[in-house]
Amino acid sequence: MNLVSFIAGEKALWGVTAGDGVLALSPEFPEFPTLRDVIAAQAIPQVLGAAQGRAASHAAGSFALQIPIPNPEKIICVGVNFPERNAEYKDGKDAPANMSLFPRFARGFSGHGAALIRPPESEQLDYEGEIAVVIGKPGRRIAESEALSHIAGLTLCNEGTIRDWVRHAKFNVTQGKNWDRSGAMGPWLVPFTDPAQILDIAIETRVNGELRQSDRTGRMLFPVARQIAYISTFTTLVPGDIIVTGTPTGAGARFDPPIWLKPGDLVEISAEGIGMLTNEVADE
Amino acid sequence: MNLVSFIAGEKALWGVTAGDGVLALSPEFPEFPTLRDVIAAQAIPQVLGAAQGRAASHAAGSFALQIPIPNPEKIICVGVNFPERNAEYKDGKDAPANMSLFPRFARGFSGHGAALIRPPESEQLDYEGEIAVVIGKPGRRIAESEALSHIAGLTLCNEGTIRDWVRHAKFNVTQGKNWDRSGAMGPWLVPFTDPAQILDIAIETRVNGELRQSDRTGRMLFPVARQIAYISTFTTLVPGDIIVTGTPTGAGARFDPPIWLKPGDLVEISAEGIGMLTNEVADE
Repeated sequence: MNLVSFIAGEKALWGVTAGDGVLALSPEFPEFPTLRDVIAAQAIPQVLGAAQGRAASHAAGSFALQIPIPNPEKIICVGVNFPERNAEYKDGKDAPANMSLFPRFARGFSGHGAALIRPPESEQLDYEGEIAVVIGKPGRRIAESEALSHIAGLTLCNEGTIRDWVRHAKFNVTQGKNWDRSGAMGPWLVPFTDPAQILDIAIETRVNGELRQSDRTGRMLFPVARQIAYISTFTTLVPGDIIVTGTPTGAGARFDPPIWLKPGDLVEISAEGIGMLTNEVADE
Repeated sequence: MNLVSFIAGEKALWGVTAGDGVLALSPEFPEFPTLRDVIAAQAIPQVLGAAQGRAASHAAGSFALQIPIPNPEKIICVGVNFPERNAEYKDGKDAPANMSLFPRFARGFSGHGAALIRPPESEQLDYEGEIAVVIGKPGRRIAESEALSHIAGLTLCNEGTIRDWVRHAKFNVTQGKNWDRSGAMGPWLVPFTDPAQILDIAIETRVNGELRQSDRTGRMLFPVARQIAYISTFTTLVPGDIIVTGTPTGAGARFDPPIWLKPGDLVEISAEGIGMLTNEVADE
């Protein structure tokens, strides 16, 4: 059973997966208006227990998945985190001693099954398949040895990017990484109970069925525990915070000439034990 | 009368300035739990009207100012926005065609009168005096000619920075710009009703009484209306969003050798028609 945030009948609800449908639990837990509140109360086992053996309340087709945590305090993305990614930048610089980080806003992401939006300002919409971890237990200056115990769950992210806007200015990738609904997250939140769920799992991205990215989290330059330790050095991590952990080589920008996403393209991102995030590209 | 968010008796309240104190209004407006809700409802004139002619409910010393909008959806900072700032980077590159942007998290800022925190990891805490605009009316792809009408109010920001962490990684200033309570915002939100409030006003920063930064918003490379138009090209601006509009030349990093802030230093940032933001530096 995985946790979901979804819209049905214009209401925002949360619950769990149940077969092809979902079981709404938020009406039974008014003390937890959102999934973020469930996580903050460390109540995932409690809500999973309440769902045990029950059927879907909403059949497939009668709801729209949202991104798993629609209202995080912050989303922090890790850049240049797989072995050949630094070389892709062709700037002659060595791999950096520390990880590159940039924030994204929640409104930059569509839920599973919703459209990835290509804006009229650019033809350079690109995919980046990634695993995202959601923080459960708050902390500052979290020791690397304790870091994985701060994770509440895992999800997938298409860290969709408008390439020509990434280098618009002197520093920072902000404006290329924050177009409304240019990325996606989901389909659900997989409860995290065992370090093996993240330490060395396969992650793959397909476009129209063609494999474009394929790597394993065991090859990350900065593994997830290191990410949590480093980020929490400067900012307090709180329940519901999302760390998007980095993409393997093979984004569309890497091809010569580059291959951008176009309307109708189907992007599928999958990882062992998490599932598959699927979105079709549409013009705004 | 200016709008304030504050803590008194461990409760988070909002209200208006009244002499040396504040008048709490949130108990009278339960439909607006926070100042952000007041702004979203376009209710600033209504709450100012309710406060007319009334005395303070909380005398000076009996409350602590918070940053004016403690719960914004997003805070976006504009970098390298005054004429000599590009030269300060000494990288031989021309001024960029577009503005540099980076997000900050609300927990990176103290309220007026609270401590600016120097963390044990670095001695390079630096000030940056800036004007911050708070969005009132939502919008996407806002025309430059309409942009100023989307502002609800103005405040001041010390966009405090841990310099050695700004260039920790390949791209992005994220980790040098997001240390908990390394910056400050306040003291209050000045309602915005006239473009003259922002078009060409003086901004100054003093450290222990010594003038360090002094410029005018009329000299910005990217004026505020252009900032709102450009940022809203890629992301929807919503009520309570904060744009921190850029700092004049003269931060501590500019001196040779650099002059970092140290415990006990008093930083004062002031701008015409807005007021003065004051914070003392303390070690964590």
